[in-house]
Amino acid sequence: MHGFPDHLLKGHANFMAGRYMREKDRIRDLASEGQTPSTMIIACCDSRAAPEMIFDAGPGELFVLRNVANLVPTYQPDGGQHGTSAGIEFAVKALGIANIVVMGHGRCGGIKAALAPESNPLDAGDFIGKWMSMLGDLPNQLGQNTLMTAAERQTALERISIRNSIHNLRTFPYVAELEAAGKLAVHGAWFDISTGELWVMDNASGDFVRPLI
Amino acid sequence: MHGFPDHLLKGHANFMAGRYMREKDRIRDLASEGQTPSTMIIACCDSRAAPEMIFDAGPGELFVLRNVANLVPTYQPDGGQHGTSAGIEFAVKALGIANIVVMGHGRCGGIKAALAPESNPLDAGDFIGKWMSMLGDLPNQLGQNTLMTAAERQTALERISIRNSIHNLRTFPYVAELEAAGKLAVHGAWFDISTGELWVMDNASGDFVRPLI
Amino acid sequence: MHGFPDHLLKGHANFMAGRYMREKDRIRDLASEGQTPSTMIIACCDSRAAPEMIFDAGPGELFVLRNVANLVPTYQPDGGQHGTSAGIEFAVKALGIANIVVMGHGRCGGIKAALAPESNPLDAGDFIGKWMSMLGDLPNQLGQNTLMTAAERQTALERISIRNSIHNLRTFPYVAELEAAGKLAVHGAWFDISTGELWVMDNASGDFVRPLI
Amino acid sequence: MHGFPDHLLKGHANFMAGRYMREKDRIRDLASEGQTPSTMIIACCDSRAAPEMIFDAGPGELFVLRNVANLVPTYQPDGGQHGTSAGIEFAVKALGIANIVVMGHGRCGGIKAALAPESNPLDAGDFIGKWMSMLGDLPNQLGQNTLMTAAERQTALERISIRNSIHNLRTFPYVAELEAAGKLAVHGAWFDISTGELWVMDNASGDFVRPLI
Repeated sequence: MHGFPDHLLKGHANFMAGRYMREKDRIRDLASEGQTPSTMIIACCDSRAAPEMIFDAGPGELFVLRNVANLVPTYQPDGGQHGTSAGIEFAVKALGIANIVVMGHGRCGGIKAALAPESNPLDAGDFIGKWMSMLGDLPNQLGQNTLMTAAERQTALERISIRNSIHNLRTFPYVAELEAAGKLAVHGAWFDISTGELWVMDNASGDFVRPLI
Repeated sequence: MHGFPDHLLKGHANFMAGRYMREKDRIRDLASEGQTPSTMIIACCDSRAAPEMIFDAGPGELFVLRNVANLVPTYQPDGGQHGTSAGIEFAVKALGIANIVVMGHGRCGGIKAALAPESNPLDAGDFIGKWMSMLGDLPNQLGQNTLMTAAERQTALERISIRNSIHNLRTFPYVAELEAAGKLAVHGAWFDISTGELWVMDNASGDFVRPLI
Repeated sequence: MHGFPDHLLKGHANFMAGRYMREKDRIRDLASEGQTPSTMIIACCDSRAAPEMIFDAGPGELFVLRNVANLVPTYQPDGGQHGTSAGIEFAVKALGIANIVVMGHGRCGGIKAALAPESNPLDAGDFIGKWMSMLGDLPNQLGQNTLMTAAERQTALERISIRNSIHNLRTFPYVAELEAAGKLAVHGAWFDISTGELWVMDNASGDFVRPLI
Repeated sequence: MHGFPDHLLKGHANFMAGRYMREKDRIRDLASEGQTPSTMIIACCDSRAAPEMIFDAGPGELFVLRNVANLVPTYQPDGGQHGTSAGIEFAVKALGIANIVVMGHGRCGGIKAALAPESNPLDAGDFIGKWMSMLGDLPNQLGQNTLMTAAERQTALERISIRNSIHNLRTFPYVAELEAAGKLAVHGAWFDISTGELWVMDNASGDFVRPLI
């Protein structure tokens, strides 16, 4: 017996009877002709923040990389196995993507761990701590601001981290070049997992605002 | 002006008017009470293989890590910033997940690049090449098998790679311990992006079969 | 000639023909029987943040004190002419109010002046600077946080200031006593002058959230 | 739980569904472009005398300071925290307001307290008594006039106080200068909370008259 989780099998049967049946022509075309998504989303693994749900996106629309806390490292071609950098390279160079969106979200567990490392049950040699160390001194700087509540500091760092990831994204030479040439746009977004709202980063100021409808 | 992609804004408006309105009580509960997904999916960034679509999953159900070609490295607590390992650690240690599924899919661009490095337009210092080198000599061994067609070799490597990732996953001490204790199950799956079928790995033999319904 | 502004005379004529005509019984009763508002609002002078508009309140409902940046001083019975303290005293002791709401708002000019005193065109002997000095070192502490954008710092200080005013409000002995006796409730709120949203302070955490509907 | 007063939440929902929906373009413009009200109103906290109601004014039209009995102190740049003076300074210097209206009203509780200190339930160290002491000997002088009824004395002091506030307003150097230069006009008004009538002060005589329509 395979022992595969039953809820996944049932979910897949729903997919086959529903979306697949309705969209099978398009899905099969995407298989035979290859994917040509115009947008890459760099998002968090959080189960409450799936990009396809948030953007009501169908097959073929979004190239989605998800890691803990949607972090982007700086460009470091040091021969290491950099999964996020590989995803960015694939999106830009192999797929010719037109937009990259770094999307954070509220109540992010990774950001929370970065802000309160002492309450983190993980030991010193852990991967989450090392991974979140990509934020450098940012959590520490913000953590000293006791005028803000814990939730306010968390939201603040979620947004600071998005700006930081966008800054790092621009250290990739081809990202910077294509952006300068007007062929690639880089965006920030923050999803409120409670209200469902999308807050979009203003590229000039770095502020997050809800697009007016 | 934010210049945020219009298709994403429209998609988000659809989400708000649709799924969010229908499920807002559940979504808000998930926000206030925290996520408790029982399953982690390690999937590919491919726009045609979103786990939430394939498993018809709603908010809170799946903790999803997505990298190029759904690779899992071996346990290497060397102080480096290992994003996939951080995701696994978070899922197992912070969320107490019960299932981890490594899900590959057909016509995977990363696997294709690993099989045909000579046709890869990327230079030697690239991230994709280094990332796919996690497969070691596997592509090379398979590439010499000229009895299989190119498509057969690709499907074969997609599945070999899933087995390799599951092997690597078990090098994480807590994964091995919890699995031995019957508290965590590790699974493999392969999604056919054309037919929509899910092929599930038999844990004993390593074969991929379609579950009988 | 009185030279009274024409727009006010026209507005008043509208009031007489509209609301007054519709509600004159109630308005006249309020005049003869006296006001018995249950709620005091301490708000800002800003023309975009009138409490009666925000809460769609009619005559007799809200006892409203408005000063620059909706500040509340600490209890200082030093014989000085403290206008805000006089308003609080009147509301609590003469009117027996049941709720006091300190309501801030976005893009507050007073808060902005407090955060950027160097760009303030006012001289050293000004009243606004002295008035905003009620915030003590708070703007300075926050102003050193350059990880946040100017707009983020402004929103943060608007909310920190509301918490500070509520703290000060509780230094009034009768406010503290009545609150302890469950006869008076103290609240914080923040109005978004662009989206029209009301963010309500959670009394336990100090966080501002939009009430779910 | 926030425990925010329910009547305010309902009122705000009415605002969002009503005025906000109808005027959202204007409201959003006011948020992004800043307020430019032409008129400042110095009014009382009384729940029956909201300037926006009396003048049927919308967002952005009136910069409104409200204290007990709409008093204006003399110009005293002594380093104290003068809230009303800060509001005047902000209106004149930061907003470049064209009109300042001191608006009193009938049956004013503050004026009543000033006229009948013996019936005032507040003790000697109170803020209201100190605040109303801004009227100096005026209540006392009028109180000895027993030819007038209590209601007549009250209305008289309400109007005398407005003239006194206007006098004090002109001790602010910039108010006097701008008024002399024809760039700022100072007005008095008295609102009858029962009949809804507006009585406007004649600048030459100081008399209050109902404007002829």
